[in-house]
Amino acid sequence: MEVIQGGVTAPRGFLAGAARCGLKKEGYDLGIILSERPAQAAAMFTTNQIVAAPIVLSREAVKRGEMRAVVVNSGNANACTGEKGYENARTMAEVAASSLGISPDEVFVASTGIIGEQLPMEKIVSGIKDAAKDLWPEIQSGHAFAQAISTTDTFIKEIAVKTKAGGHVITIGGAAKGAGMIAPNMATMLCFLTTDCLVPSKVLDRCLNHSVARSFNRISVDGHMSTNDAVLILANGESDDPVIDDATMALPIFQEALDYVTDHLAKAIIRDGEGATKFVVIEVSGAPTETYALQVARAVGNSPLVKTAINGEDPNWGRIISAAGAAGIPLDEKRLKLYIGDVLVFEGGVSAASAREKLLEEMKKKEVCIRLHLGLGKSKTEFWTCDLSHEYVTINAKYRT
Amino acid sequence: MEVIQGGVTAPRGFLAGAARCGLKKEGYDLGIILSERPAQAAAMFTTNQIVAAPIVLSREAVKRGEMRAVVVNSGNANACTGEKGYENARTMAEVAASSLGISPDEVFVASTGIIGEQLPMEKIVSGIKDAAKDLWPEIQSGHAFAQAISTTDTFIKEIAVKTKAGGHVITIGGAAKGAGMIAPNMATMLCFLTTDCLVPSKVLDRCLNHSVARSFNRISVDGHMSTNDAVLILANGESDDPVIDDATMALPIFQEALDYVTDHLAKAIIRDGEGATKFVVIEVSGAPTETYALQVARAVGNSPLVKTAINGEDPNWGRIISAAGAAGIPLDEKRLKLYIGDVLVFEGGVSAASAREKLLEEMKKKEVCIRLHLGLGKSKTEFWTCDLSHEYVTINAKYRT
Repeated sequence: MEVIQGGVTAPRGFLAGAARCGLKKEGYDLGIILSERPAQAAAMFTTNQIVAAPIVLSREAVKRGEMRAVVVNSGNANACTGEKGYENARTMAEVAASSLGISPDEVFVASTGIIGEQLPMEKIVSGIKDAAKDLWPEIQSGHAFAQAISTTDTFIKEIAVKTKAGGHVITIGGAAKGAGMIAPNMATMLCFLTTDCLVPSKVLDRCLNHSVARSFNRISVDGHMSTNDAVLILANGESDDPVIDDATMALPIFQEALDYVTDHLAKAIIRDGEGATKFVVIEVSGAPTETYALQVARAVGNSPLVKTAINGEDPNWGRIISAAGAAGIPLDEKRLKLYIGDVLVFEGGVSAASAREKLLEEMKKKEVCIRLHLGLGKSKTEFWTCDLSHEYVTINAKYRT
Repeated sequence: MEVIQGGVTAPRGFLAGAARCGLKKEGYDLGIILSERPAQAAAMFTTNQIVAAPIVLSREAVKRGEMRAVVVNSGNANACTGEKGYENARTMAEVAASSLGISPDEVFVASTGIIGEQLPMEKIVSGIKDAAKDLWPEIQSGHAFAQAISTTDTFIKEIAVKTKAGGHVITIGGAAKGAGMIAPNMATMLCFLTTDCLVPSKVLDRCLNHSVARSFNRISVDGHMSTNDAVLILANGESDDPVIDDATMALPIFQEALDYVTDHLAKAIIRDGEGATKFVVIEVSGAPTETYALQVARAVGNSPLVKTAINGEDPNWGRIISAAGAAGIPLDEKRLKLYIGDVLVFEGGVSAASAREKLLEEMKKKEVCIRLHLGLGKSKTEFWTCDLSHEYVTINAKYRT
């Protein structure tokens, strides 16, 4: 497998474009992806009980298993906007469809930004028309799309990979946004994935679930789950290679490439976590089940006390142990081992005799690795988070105004 | 009922004292309470899977239902300290017992402070002996005890109340500590309650559970549950009034007074929340059950995005709605109503037409009230938290070093 230049337009037969309609203070705030052929589609959405209007619409639309286009605005989430919000999401699909010469139910609609305000539809409509006029298969167009979906992101998140399966080339591209309101089970993040191979929507759905479980559902910036999260994958078969399904050897190769793409984009979101100064890996091993391991990892990764200690480069490992202990599942203190990087800090129920200097060195790294071995089984997991900084408070104390 | 001066020594027959053994940078760090007679006792402890050595010891000791004394140190939690930690907790009980002329199993031991370091026992032993020599029933002694149990607390938390039941006077006193690592189900907080009436330990246990459920289990500073929490009540019967049990009319009056005391102390902990600039009340009503209401209230109260918005006096109510929606239980957006103070901000699935100025006024208050009506039933609850400030990050990024 090889990482290649570009993002959502890297696979053949995908065009993208962006426009500025004035919802954000600056830059593109409306993006479109168009597949030249109808594409097989699969998607996953937030599990929040309160979901944004475009989620309601797109959740329904994607059930058909086929899509042609994506239209996304940033700057306004179209959430908590009632019937009118739903009408506006539908209008977005309709305007995009008529501009692109396709059907409204072939358009996947997404929004991200402030909650509780109606979309300024005049701006949105003219933005969609502008973007639809200017769609290209170039790298720059994919890049413009990635910019258009960003909010508090400080950098663009995109990737493309190429791999071979039985003489055929599989290309997958992707763009994501997200920096805050990020929690397990997909919090404010959007991710759009494209591929030019042909994977039937049911198989695609299973592959997407697999990849998301190992990437976007393993990250947390602030433990706050959003109303707007969505991950979509479109497979348009433009490569004209044989169908990839359970009968083909290409499926595990496709899965591996997709895992790589979502892994990269999820990590990019954490690296861009609001106010983040550190990338934190939490490895939990020796658990009875993977779910068990994940529950411990999440408890540690969502603890503000752990995250502030990491911000202060302070090896206050007691907070890690106590966060793990409060995960709501049985633990045996005496079997527990805790490493920070390679330094063993806790074993047999007590502090391990570790070199304080070596420990401080680990805490100074840009990437801090917390490794907990539970001693209760053979399952393990990995979870990614960031530290909690002054900057996080500054960004979020005055987001709206 | 009347609030009177003092704390744990306000009820008759309780002496208290404090000493400095040098575990904290300054001030008293070792405290003792002694009941002149054996007292009926009940206690509640952290539900963290990893518990400190004194918790293991005291959890066992209190099962007898009778206690005479309390010995507490601050500055070191004696948690994650293994067998040696347990031995040290036992030594604390033994030294206190021999200094006070009682039995070690009549001593309730508690510790609070940094996790993972062994207690400096020489200092602790001489501190216990010093404090035991200097026990008095005065208000100042209760005050010294309250100081001795404090860590990052910026003020002393104590209260005493007096009430009448059938011609008899009931007095209850209390001292608490806690400012960070505070989460539902009692996180780093210690609370010691005394009363001079006679309540059998089983009844006392039930009363304590009732009060704690409505106070210490309804608060959160940072959602992080500690290894050391404990709430203890001692009822020594020094008033020589009739026993208070299920057969007496005095029981509901005692319960009411106890509720008042724990309510006051829990709120004091939140007012002193690390870096807190606002006291936040989250009222959830219209729930199918109280547990349901509490789950929603906790989700809102533990959201860093809600807490930073309150810190910034920013009426970003979308975060409240989305936090509620992520509580993990069914909600109906259209039945939901959200008020900030008296200002309706969300109803029928959309933003309510509220006066922005009035809303900003509510956000500027020292006490911000978030009121969510779920429209799904008749149960309700209240939850108390504080905002998340730069100061919280500063305090916690460098606690240890």
